[in-house]
Amino acid sequence: MKGFASDNYSPVHPDVFAAIAEANVGHAVSYGADPVSAKADALLREHFGSQATPYLVFNGSGANVLCLRTLCKPWESVVCAGSAHVNTDEGGGPEIVAGLKLLTCPTPDGKLTPDAIAGWLPNLGNVHAAQPRVVTVTQSTELGTRYDVQELKALGEFCAASGLLLHVDGARLSNAAAGLDVGLGDLAGGIGATAVSFGGTKNGLMLGEAAVFLDPASAPPAAYVRKQLLQLASKHRFLAAQFVALLTDDLWRRLAGHSNAMAARLAAAVGGIDGVRITQPVQANGVFAVLPDGVADRVRQDWPFYTWNEVTGEVRWMCSWDTTEADVDAFVADLAAACAADRALRSR
Amino acid sequence: MKGFASDNYSPVHPDVFAAIAEANVGHAVSYGADPVSAKADALLREHFGSQATPYLVFNGSGANVLCLRTLCKPWESVVCAGSAHVNTDEGGGPEIVAGLKLLTCPTPDGKLTPDAIAGWLPNLGNVHAAQPRVVTVTQSTELGTRYDVQELKALGEFCAASGLLLHVDGARLSNAAAGLDVGLGDLAGGIGATAVSFGGTKNGLMLGEAAVFLDPASAPPAAYVRKQLLQLASKHRFLAAQFVALLTDDLWRRLAGHSNAMAARLAAAVGGIDGVRITQPVQANGVFAVLPDGVADRVRQDWPFYTWNEVTGEVRWMCSWDTTEADVDAFVADLAAACAADRALRSR
Amino acid sequence: MKGFASDNYSPVHPDVFAAIAEANVGHAVSYGADPVSAKADALLREHFGSQATPYLVFNGSGANVLCLRTLCKPWESVVCAGSAHVNTDEGGGPEIVAGLKLLTCPTPDGKLTPDAIAGWLPNLGNVHAAQPRVVTVTQSTELGTRYDVQELKALGEFCAASGLLLHVDGARLSNAAAGLDVGLGDLAGGIGATAVSFGGTKNGLMLGEAAVFLDPASAPPAAYVRKQLLQLASKHRFLAAQFVALLTDDLWRRLAGHSNAMAARLAAAVGGIDGVRITQPVQANGVFAVLPDGVADRVRQDWPFYTWNEVTGEVRWMCSWDTTEADVDAFVADLAAACAADRALRSR
Amino acid sequence: MKGFASDNYSPVHPDVFAAIAEANVGHAVSYGADPVSAKADALLREHFGSQATPYLVFNGSGANVLCLRTLCKPWESVVCAGSAHVNTDEGGGPEIVAGLKLLTCPTPDGKLTPDAIAGWLPNLGNVHAAQPRVVTVTQSTELGTRYDVQELKALGEFCAASGLLLHVDGARLSNAAAGLDVGLGDLAGGIGATAVSFGGTKNGLMLGEAAVFLDPASAPPAAYVRKQLLQLASKHRFLAAQFVALLTDDLWRRLAGHSNAMAARLAAAVGGIDGVRITQPVQANGVFAVLPDGVADRVRQDWPFYTWNEVTGEVRWMCSWDTTEADVDAFVADLAAACAADRALRSR
Repeated sequence: MKGFASDNYSPVHPDVFAAIAEANVGHAVSYGADPVSAKADALLREHFGSQATPYLVFNGSGANVLCLRTLCKPWESVVCAGSAHVNTDEGGGPEIVAGLKLLTCPTPDGKLTPDAIAGWLPNLGNVHAAQPRVVTVTQSTELGTRYDVQELKALGEFCAASGLLLHVDGARLSNAAAGLDVGLGDLAGGIGATAVSFGGTKNGLMLGEAAVFLDPASAPPAAYVRKQLLQLASKHRFLAAQFVALLTDDLWRRLAGHSNAMAARLAAAVGGIDGVRITQPVQANGVFAVLPDGVADRVRQDWPFYTWNEVTGEVRWMCSWDTTEADVDAFVADLAAACAADRALRSR
Repeated sequence: MKGFASDNYSPVHPDVFAAIAEANVGHAVSYGADPVSAKADALLREHFGSQATPYLVFNGSGANVLCLRTLCKPWESVVCAGSAHVNTDEGGGPEIVAGLKLLTCPTPDGKLTPDAIAGWLPNLGNVHAAQPRVVTVTQSTELGTRYDVQELKALGEFCAASGLLLHVDGARLSNAAAGLDVGLGDLAGGIGATAVSFGGTKNGLMLGEAAVFLDPASAPPAAYVRKQLLQLASKHRFLAAQFVALLTDDLWRRLAGHSNAMAARLAAAVGGIDGVRITQPVQANGVFAVLPDGVADRVRQDWPFYTWNEVTGEVRWMCSWDTTEADVDAFVADLAAACAADRALRSR
Repeated sequence: MKGFASDNYSPVHPDVFAAIAEANVGHAVSYGADPVSAKADALLREHFGSQATPYLVFNGSGANVLCLRTLCKPWESVVCAGSAHVNTDEGGGPEIVAGLKLLTCPTPDGKLTPDAIAGWLPNLGNVHAAQPRVVTVTQSTELGTRYDVQELKALGEFCAASGLLLHVDGARLSNAAAGLDVGLGDLAGGIGATAVSFGGTKNGLMLGEAAVFLDPASAPPAAYVRKQLLQLASKHRFLAAQFVALLTDDLWRRLAGHSNAMAARLAAAVGGIDGVRITQPVQANGVFAVLPDGVADRVRQDWPFYTWNEVTGEVRWMCSWDTTEADVDAFVADLAAACAADRALRSR
Repeated sequence: MKGFASDNYSPVHPDVFAAIAEANVGHAVSYGADPVSAKADALLREHFGSQATPYLVFNGSGANVLCLRTLCKPWESVVCAGSAHVNTDEGGGPEIVAGLKLLTCPTPDGKLTPDAIAGWLPNLGNVHAAQPRVVTVTQSTELGTRYDVQELKALGEFCAASGLLLHVDGARLSNAAAGLDVGLGDLAGGIGATAVSFGGTKNGLMLGEAAVFLDPASAPPAAYVRKQLLQLASKHRFLAAQFVALLTDDLWRRLAGHSNAMAARLAAAVGGIDGVRITQPVQANGVFAVLPDGVADRVRQDWPFYTWNEVTGEVRWMCSWDTTEADVDAFVADLAAACAADRALRSR
């Protein structure tokens, strides 16, 4: 069962697995006060800056809510794209567990702009309105697009000038950094973000994300917030070991770069198929497309993937660290055949 | 660094690790719709009854809050022992993420009784008071004690007669079941519980607990609540594989029985040391004791363990699946020597 | 200081004030168990149906959150217009105090339609998405528009067919009922709503709104929820007395009908002023308009009113039970003069 | 129906009512930006100090939760007596609407001491435990007792030295100040409190309490928190007018002093009745007592009052601003007769 359904269908990378195995020796202090956790922290600071304070958590929703909850006072709220994962795919967790109101902006491509955010600024100081405090951007986005560094810097400056903080939902930060050929920190502290959710699960880990606070003043409370949010691992070394592997010898970049390349290969190939229309720029490891009616369901029998938008029928194909050129090519061949068959059927 | 600090200092049992490795092959549907997860569910139903509905989560706090949140309507609250983990060691998570008011009862040994619970019943129907709805008991308790089956059945009957539901915080349910020589289900559905948090992390897993709903009617919403509580794992197969191992060939019972035996050995030996007073019945894998002033800190230099009560100086020694007889004996020898040295010092 | 800023700038109607005074005699049981409260309940049932269960609260936000919180389980959420008061003007209260995620629909006129709601239905059963459960409509709307009875019935039927509940935010329900010449119940139970927030403050009361549950099964928990939401008045008779007055001799209809008539008069007059563009149908007691640049600020020196939309400059004029024809005419004259002066200035 | 059930059974004092009537003229800006509200604020600052920032709210639960929510960050919690209203009589509101964990201390008389609070200090800095941040004391207490100024100052100093803030639940602050013959501010800023809930409803108002922040730095966010907690009145002048009356010509002190005197008279008289045992020092407007079995229910047929403790049968008698000497004497006579009849019955 190999397919393009999600980068979280993929297994654990062997190097990551080996690191977990290596950590599984004898007793270790729990809750993060062990040597493996110290090493992960050091590596995270190496990538995100010496002022960075990382907190490992179980999953991306946990990292996002930890960052946002820590940065917002209870009467403050979060500006995000309407398509942001935090708005659409966290089951109302941000609202129910953290009381966070999300102030959404419609976007064509999942990317916020200063203009879009500015629409919420009149609320500032109005006691009847939830107070905008943090802007969260997803990099790379849920739609497979990517902010370039300049766009992010402009957002960072806009936030700073508006009294807002910037958070990066980086569940796929590695894909963006690999694609832009920059460091992880260049997309975090480097663009003026106060905190970033740095994802691992979608890039070869078993589970684990890091909520990284770039502002030393806002970081300490996160220790309490992580515990309250049920996100503090007791055998913490096993989360840490995975980050040690991911951040050693640029494994994160190699894996993300590979999945990006596979998406580019896929896009290049399907773009040439009659009837397939790619709907978003392919800038990370996902390809979004619209297919002729019925084709998706036929191909899906062999190759799992999701319909992204039930109304338009738009589909999403995700590539992973273990997607091979052969996988892509075989899938493209099947898709092309299905499209051809569909055309034949329709022309009758 | 081997010690008696906590059963969560211990590593992953080799069988569990092997099961994780075995699950790490190819793609698998995420969020629990994979064959390994199906197998874990089947095994959990084997142990907890065919009506049981399990939800795997990351940690014990997650399992407890998932159960309690699902069983309580927003205006309902939870009766627990003052010493319950949910009250003392979850950082206010139950209140802040789930709005759960905890109605506490003082107990000498961590064990609730119908009489203690009855003190909260006058609140029922009083609109000014939080409404008692769920009673949560910890089995085995945070104080190393254990309910026997009859005590639990009496609690279950009392709850049923009072319109209350019963939840078991079974972070160490295996230790209780092993000690009582009963099945896991005998301490869950068998005593009238509606839900149980079945712990794995403290008994040889890397991470993972199961919130098991025994009443089919109350189980379905837990799927949404788990997601909202940030406790839904994407690569779910890796949680599931651990439970497959734990529930195969009675691994859970062997590991818990061993740690219980080590605690019994430890208690028997330290009970004979002049100056050491054991403070709680030793009925699971923990020993609680009061030591002569200063002795704890001296021994702790070589053997990590925690002071349980800063006021009384009571200490806690936890045994684990990997505690050996040699560990116990060496520790006891060091403790005896420290006590003897202390006596010598004082008699001067 | 008479103006068109808000219907909550107006004083208490003399009949309402007299009823409060009449209630202020001797001792009365607190929290609603007094004769005046019983009379208010009876009158509310007279208007909303014999199955109705009312709970008096302090303000409209309280009534809305009480209804929505009671009708939604913690994992369920609320569909509303983006312009709904519950979304824009309650300071994030619904999210922070009740954990309610709001699923918003853009509308041109503040009115939901089955089609708009239908966009959220694919979320049903998807564990990653907040579950739509209640649709809330505002009648009359925040934009001065009004659903007719058929539109509401269609929404009620659509909700029933989709497994959703319907709530009416009736902060200005009286204005709608007066305008449509129907009873209050015709816009509540009559259209299939499960609960309605029936407003009083904007229609002549000092303070007080009624959360009215039309479904006997969902009403009882609201007693606990009201208390938890800090909305239970101790000297409850003084809220109740106001509703007694409002619901006696159709005071509600007379007051709301008058403020509607004043808005119609205002709209008719300003519609003829060169440069003034009315932006919404005038169907209740508010008029929305766009004015020539700078005119609003000039007129506002004498006549308080609010800018509704900072971006477009759209303004809102609200009429109240105590707005007189003379008030309207004087204001229109001033506005016309300011527009004329503005035109003169521009033509130079 | 005159009785001793609660001070919230009493009506509105004529001076307060007159002030409301006086405010009911013409239009006024809503939400507190009107002249009457300004006058109330000025009077509150006169009594609580020039640095005080008051926020009027609807009820005592609202004032308490507003103060505590504003002073606590989300991971911080509140130390209180087990008998505190915030713990026992607010329906779990503090937990559910504000996520506040309450760390309770048992007390014989409703009064906290530094020693009792100190038991929670080891939690500070422990990520597994809710962090103590605010200590709330009730003055006068729910048990009719009263802190003297020195006791409160000692608590204030202890809190300051421990990094904690002090809040006063002053639903009956007037009774305490009248009894101690000090000013309101002497029991607020004067003892080092950061915020106080100053009650009006139980002392002659229709409804209304003031959350008064004494520390200018912590006050501003309360504007947002009040709105979120659904406690912002639109026709705010009517809350304000009541405080204007209460704080003019020492009405607060005259009313509270009177109800205190009535309680003292009651206590003196019932203390001499054979079979009646007063259980708490009578230091405010309440008397707590244990009666012979069955006597309470007999007397209650004519004189409403509550059983405070269902287990011990302890009853509570509250005096109000409108309790007369004749009321007290008549009640005492009836009680004495009932006790005598009971003795006669028993001696048979």
